[in-house]
Amino acid sequence: MLGRPAATLLHLGPGLANGLANLHNARRARSPIVNIVGDHATYHKRFDAPLESDIDALARTVSAWARRPSRPGDVGLDTADAVAAARSGGGQVATLILPADVSWGKEGAVAAPRHCRPPARVADEVVAEVAGALSGEEPAVLLLGGPALREPALVAASRIGAATGARVLTETFTARIERGAGRPAFDKLGYFAEGAEAQLAGTRHLVLAGAASPVAFFAYPGRPSDLVPADCQVHLLAGPSEDVLGALVAVCERVAPGAASGAGREGPTPGRPAGAGGFSAGPISAEGIGAVVGASLPEGSVLVDEAITAGVGLAAGTVGAPPHDWLGHTGGAIGQGLPVATGAAVACPERRVVCVEADGSAMYTIQALWTQAREGLDVTTIVVSNRAYGILQIEMHRVDADPPGPAAAALLDLDRPTIDVVALARGFGVPAVSVTTLEELDAALRRSLTEPGPALIEAVMPGR
Amino acid sequence: MLGRPAATLLHLGPGLANGLANLHNARRARSPIVNIVGDHATYHKRFDAPLESDIDALARTVSAWARRPSRPGDVGLDTADAVAAARSGGGQVATLILPADVSWGKEGAVAAPRHCRPPARVADEVVAEVAGALSGEEPAVLLLGGPALREPALVAASRIGAATGARVLTETFTARIERGAGRPAFDKLGYFAEGAEAQLAGTRHLVLAGAASPVAFFAYPGRPSDLVPADCQVHLLAGPSEDVLGALVAVCERVAPGAASGAGREGPTPGRPAGAGGFSAGPISAEGIGAVVGASLPEGSVLVDEAITAGVGLAAGTVGAPPHDWLGHTGGAIGQGLPVATGAAVACPERRVVCVEADGSAMYTIQALWTQAREGLDVTTIVVSNRAYGILQIEMHRVDADPPGPAAAALLDLDRPTIDVVALARGFGVPAVSVTTLEELDAALRRSLTEPGPALIEAVMPGR
Repeated sequence: MLGRPAATLLHLGPGLANGLANLHNARRARSPIVNIVGDHATYHKRFDAPLESDIDALARTVSAWARRPSRPGDVGLDTADAVAAARSGGGQVATLILPADVSWGKEGAVAAPRHCRPPARVADEVVAEVAGALSGEEPAVLLLGGPALREPALVAASRIGAATGARVLTETFTARIERGAGRPAFDKLGYFAEGAEAQLAGTRHLVLAGAASPVAFFAYPGRPSDLVPADCQVHLLAGPSEDVLGALVAVCERVAPGAASGAGREGPTPGRPAGAGGFSAGPISAEGIGAVVGASLPEGSVLVDEAITAGVGLAAGTVGAPPHDWLGHTGGAIGQGLPVATGAAVACPERRVVCVEADGSAMYTIQALWTQAREGLDVTTIVVSNRAYGILQIEMHRVDADPPGPAAAALLDLDRPTIDVVALARGFGVPAVSVTTLEELDAALRRSLTEPGPALIEAVMPGR
Repeated sequence: MLGRPAATLLHLGPGLANGLANLHNARRARSPIVNIVGDHATYHKRFDAPLESDIDALARTVSAWARRPSRPGDVGLDTADAVAAARSGGGQVATLILPADVSWGKEGAVAAPRHCRPPARVADEVVAEVAGALSGEEPAVLLLGGPALREPALVAASRIGAATGARVLTETFTARIERGAGRPAFDKLGYFAEGAEAQLAGTRHLVLAGAASPVAFFAYPGRPSDLVPADCQVHLLAGPSEDVLGALVAVCERVAPGAASGAGREGPTPGRPAGAGGFSAGPISAEGIGAVVGASLPEGSVLVDEAITAGVGLAAGTVGAPPHDWLGHTGGAIGQGLPVATGAAVACPERRVVCVEADGSAMYTIQALWTQAREGLDVTTIVVSNRAYGILQIEMHRVDADPPGPAAAALLDLDRPTIDVVALARGFGVPAVSVTTLEELDAALRRSLTEPGPALIEAVMPGR
């Protein structure tokens, strides 16, 4: 949230292991993180004590940089390197494995911060090639990801689209988008491969701006993994560690001279969502949740989305809400929403965080609620209870598996017994209510926004 | 519990990561486990989809055996190999990484189980050497671990001790001990290094039977890691993958011919614990919890211990209870108790499981309660709330750190807000009560033992 590294403190291999799933997400999100993993004293490792394990191997699976200082005098410099590594490459995970004796030694010294090189400037030839591709006769798509999802880059992309006729799309999975009323909004590439294929059908030039070339989330029998049409040329404008904004502005200057630096915002400026007209009353629904959230989301808030199947209405419902940040999922390891909401609130105590969370995913890291209570964080969590791993039910169908038997089907259910999310929240010290209608959700959400500290609202889907 | 492998089903790298801390414990416990980790289709991996990660590296940190079949026709044979690997070496973790297309392919075939070689017989020369060391004039200790903690081996060890005058001790961290009235009981080596050093002081011969040579759990400034006295000779009678029982019986036959096969149990036979006389009334205390549990623990039950600092009275309180299994902690990754209790109850539906769990550790894997409710498992969980990571408060003191400031001290507390463990249990569908006296604990424990399905009792320490 602040553009500088977060830090974690983890206890040997098992402590790191407990953090790995969300560090995987952080790696995919290019979140700058410095992990400090305490290890046994250097001379103790050979004794294979109970907690001994291969921390280095674990660390390498998520870290772009990992180091194990062996002398107290090195710790300051190694820490400065870790911070610099986390800030490099568009945001990376850096892991400092710190033996106990190196930590408790007295010869340490604080090191000066390391300078980080700014993102690399994209060459003029690349800009010219992309401008040509987007301006030509053939259908072109500009795909935005990473730093291209901040407002200045979105404005440049919008003007490029207006000037060239190229379509602008955003990646399926995005760590952070600056969005809301007055900010350009673009369709995102669909999650299901057949939807994304339809969106890209006929495209002859695909320009990647901070985005990866689109691939299917999973493989499915008889369907392609690579979602780029066969006769489409892929142009890399800027990778996530390059100056994506500068590159987009440069392209904009070529295709619409003066537009990038022009005053005023010209992107689409949606009004309030249509929720009031159709979706804000009656039983809980995915579309209704989006409309209700969009109707009261405060300006400058942070919207965290791990609603999975219950979140399909969230983007449409909130696109015209006051300007806000949207924090999404980039790694696919569920259980991210509550920790990310917690981290965002720690980083930005002056901003309200609203986290829309699926019940199945919430159960992975429900303990984060206690941290929210302990730190008095202004987080409103909406847990949408459909009492199932709905996405897995869909995915099982999509791989053409035989209809699941009772044992397999039971793996994807969340009933028997029903989980009382309100009781869990209160157990962790977070005030909570359960609602079954959109009107109740709206009232509970608005109330939580006026009260300091965390709150949880369970929104129960009909028939659950 | 059953002497055959358990199986897990985990979803790509993050799913494996979520299981790693307890797989670390399983590795240390020599629990035979076959992990089946689903991965992307073979042809999908090169696209670096969001969930792509280095599963193989993660798997190797806990697995003695790992394999990734590449064709459906290999899966049956590879699975048979995985099961055989899990059963080998005294119990191992085996991980089968199963790509989606290999899994959904139609050419698979079931393979016949592989024969596993029995544990290796210990050579006569080793038996003779150990018998000599234990029978000699010099002080000797027989240290038991792993399979030497089952009743027949304990009986042999007891008779060896009686015949030779050697002291018999058990390892500090033990996966499973068969214990209770009528079974030989031995002191365990202390957790704190200075205690263990005192126990071993003067020992000239240390015989390892299924045990590792004792080392300190952590290194401490100015204290040794190796707990074996300088002038003590270490004799390896049998490692955990050798025939420890056979070796102990062979030693017994040498030092006390006929004793090992003699009828009747001759080990110490403690009566009921002294709890009724001193510790079974009044405020919750570690000693009182042990006495209360010992007073009603059913014959054939399974006692799971992750009580950490609150468990120091558990061994003494239950040593004379009816015969039972004690499942302890061997890997040091906290959050083991609830999952291990769950697994034991799944394996042994006819046996009651009583899990004594510290509140701090319970929070790592509190979700296991829902599984207990869902499966209707006969598990009584006693969560001892001291509202602190008590062991970490002790360990911080022991490394001679400066007195912790408010921020460091807060990391080791579990209050602000108090966690309502009863609300959490009920939220997951497990009936629960909170008690503050040993009488209430006794009544709640006895009640839970008569009712099918899981129950949770929070035992709150005084002043918390």
